[in-house]
Amino acid sequence: EEAKDAAAATPNSSGKTIPGLSITNENHIYKITLNRPKKFNAITWEMYDGLVDSLKEADADPSVKLVVITGAGDYYCSGNDLGNFSKIAEVGKEKLAEHAGGVFDRFVKAFIDFEKPLIFAVNGPAVGIAVTLLPLANLVYASDSATFHTPFVTLGQSAEGTSTYNFPRLMGSLKASEVLIFGRKLTAEEAYERNLVNEVIPKASFAAEVDKRIAQFAKLPPQALKINKNIVRDVDREALHKVNEREVKVLMNRWLSKECEQALTAFMTRKK
Amino acid sequence: EEAKDAAAATPNSSGKTIPGLSITNENHIYKITLNRPKKFNAITWEMYDGLVDSLKEADADPSVKLVVITGAGDYYCSGNDLGNFSKIAEVGKEKLAEHAGGVFDRFVKAFIDFEKPLIFAVNGPAVGIAVTLLPLANLVYASDSATFHTPFVTLGQSAEGTSTYNFPRLMGSLKASEVLIFGRKLTAEEAYERNLVNEVIPKASFAAEVDKRIAQFAKLPPQALKINKNIVRDVDREALHKVNEREVKVLMNRWLSKECEQALTAFMTRKK
Amino acid sequence: EEAKDAAAATPNSSGKTIPGLSITNENHIYKITLNRPKKFNAITWEMYDGLVDSLKEADADPSVKLVVITGAGDYYCSGNDLGNFSKIAEVGKEKLAEHAGGVFDRFVKAFIDFEKPLIFAVNGPAVGIAVTLLPLANLVYASDSATFHTPFVTLGQSAEGTSTYNFPRLMGSLKASEVLIFGRKLTAEEAYERNLVNEVIPKASFAAEVDKRIAQFAKLPPQALKINKNIVRDVDREALHKVNEREVKVLMNRWLSKECEQALTAFMTRKK
Repeated sequence: EEAKDAAAATPNSSGKTIPGLSITNENHIYKITLNRPKKFNAITWEMYDGLVDSLKEADADPSVKLVVITGAGDYYCSGNDLGNFSKIAEVGKEKLAEHAGGVFDRFVKAFIDFEKPLIFAVNGPAVGIAVTLLPLANLVYASDSATFHTPFVTLGQSAEGTSTYNFPRLMGSLKASEVLIFGRKLTAEEAYERNLVNEVIPKASFAAEVDKRIAQFAKLPPQALKINKNIVRDVDREALHKVNEREVKVLMNRWLSKECEQALTAFMTRKK
Repeated sequence: EEAKDAAAATPNSSGKTIPGLSITNENHIYKITLNRPKKFNAITWEMYDGLVDSLKEADADPSVKLVVITGAGDYYCSGNDLGNFSKIAEVGKEKLAEHAGGVFDRFVKAFIDFEKPLIFAVNGPAVGIAVTLLPLANLVYASDSATFHTPFVTLGQSAEGTSTYNFPRLMGSLKASEVLIFGRKLTAEEAYERNLVNEVIPKASFAAEVDKRIAQFAKLPPQALKINKNIVRDVDREALHKVNEREVKVLMNRWLSKECEQALTAFMTRKK
Repeated sequence: EEAKDAAAATPNSSGKTIPGLSITNENHIYKITLNRPKKFNAITWEMYDGLVDSLKEADADPSVKLVVITGAGDYYCSGNDLGNFSKIAEVGKEKLAEHAGGVFDRFVKAFIDFEKPLIFAVNGPAVGIAVTLLPLANLVYASDSATFHTPFVTLGQSAEGTSTYNFPRLMGSLKASEVLIFGRKLTAEEAYERNLVNEVIPKASFAAEVDKRIAQFAKLPPQALKINKNIVRDVDREALHKVNEREVKVLMNRWLSKECEQALTAFMTRKK
């Protein structure tokens, strides 16, 4: 199945090819497309690390002013690929949880410390870590076909992506709890009202409208963009790193729990 | 007068009867009803301590997944029973302020550290500490007959219940100041817009609709519920305890002030 | 040009005349009017220091319960007077940046530590520091002719006035970034939705409606007003001072940058 998507992999400018990601870099805009449409752009171990490398590359390239992340096809991103846990029998639960914790930790850290303005263009449904990461950007555009779902409790897991810090600060602790604890799925309009989205754009014109806005931003002076992005982030940077560490630790424990095992088995069985 | 409400007192599962509170514990849901409808469910010293004990009992009972707090009759809760201050002449101002400070401190602490998801079902008007406590829950449902009023300044008192921390984080510091300093009374709809309420439900179907939603939540895995509640709370726990201490100290001074004495006298006189 | 506005200067109660400011002090209300309408009430070095002195005077006067700040004419305030930088050739960039940094630092500090409730009555368009300061008040009224614009990046500068802390806490980090980094100008209605404004009032009745509301607040007990203002501020006071220091340091570096020089030259040239 992943082989079918292999065409989607394009070399980034350092010449490395990352399966599941397509990258362009022109007119000061570094654009990453999650490109496994048949898997609803679920994130594999390779894609996590590939995204980290891409952010580093974009930071290091002086011609880049902005990074944009979007999805190919009708879905934005279905979150963590549950196939990532398929090697449980082979490697053992503990080893796998440790590996997964390390990947998540590095991944979220890269978004906390990314130094240039970051824009998410959510072209369709988003799930799990694809939702919780959004507040680490500087702008989120959403297609009116987008939905936002974080079913952590149903899956026996726990909130990540610094969402336990960022969501209460976007929408207040009560509406954040509704989403993170009780798993309420939000429409694009609801996500806008809860400050998780800056603008809702009709699906038909989504990509074109986003491109138009970003082209304008790419004319702004690069140092001022970078400095203002970081002076806003600096206020919360330390707290975000602390929260990420705690969330990863709790999540690693969850992955080893009976509840999580049962929930994932139920979910996998339902799917087939 | 309180004797008339004594029928409302029901033993909790440890066999203790708490006047003014009715408690049920079934289907994983521990439900506390403030039950002094003739006094608009104003909270007596006994009820403060009774609520603290109830939260501890709910935490300790492994069958309990969620706690719900609501009010009997048309009112949700008129806040601190001003009758609590009726013994001033007898005990002396200083002693009474010290006692009251201790009660408030323990009461708010119990809500900060309660370990399971907590839901307030605000069935009608709420005043004072019945309003300020709301953000310490994980969900707040409001009847469309509910109002939210914190007339601290008019009564010569000061904001409590960790509201000086939580309200600015729900609705921003300006709208929080409007409520906490200038005493603006909110409708249910305004409270929703300010993130103090998750959903407004028509009064006629309020209890039934709330029960329906909570029954769904009670099917979720208990460990994941508890862990996600606490990972969200952990972000602010230390700050909340610090704020509670400061608020109680300031409030104890307020109770000893001329302004507070005059305001309470004016209020009591008006009432009779 | 400034001479034309000199008539606007009125002595404050300590007998000092501050060019560009008109001050009245009656019925417990200390009212400061930014009064350089021909310059859109842009803030000169003298006005910065005059505002600091006025806040100190209002704090020290026991008859004052509230401070109100508004603008004369159709504009509220166009922010920092770019004429403040006209002495660059004479004094040198470094000296001027150091002077400006000192002025900004003292100015913002005075708002953080002002001890009584503060109300901004935004009678028309607001720009730059006139916008970023707003969350340091306790209430913001806006005329429906008001707009809110912070074009820091376009001008090669960086966010100040503790906005990097306060704006994400009012409207969430994403909508704050839209304003502070990408310079989105808000209408009064949008500012209300983003918690930067408490109430939008039609321009025709703005002054009268604001006066009516404030006259009511001026009846409240003064100690309770002051104490509640400070107990809310105390939660964030330390963080606000730290943020102000960082913002001033970054801004001083910006003023010395090539980007800022080019942007200001372009802006000045465009104006004439």
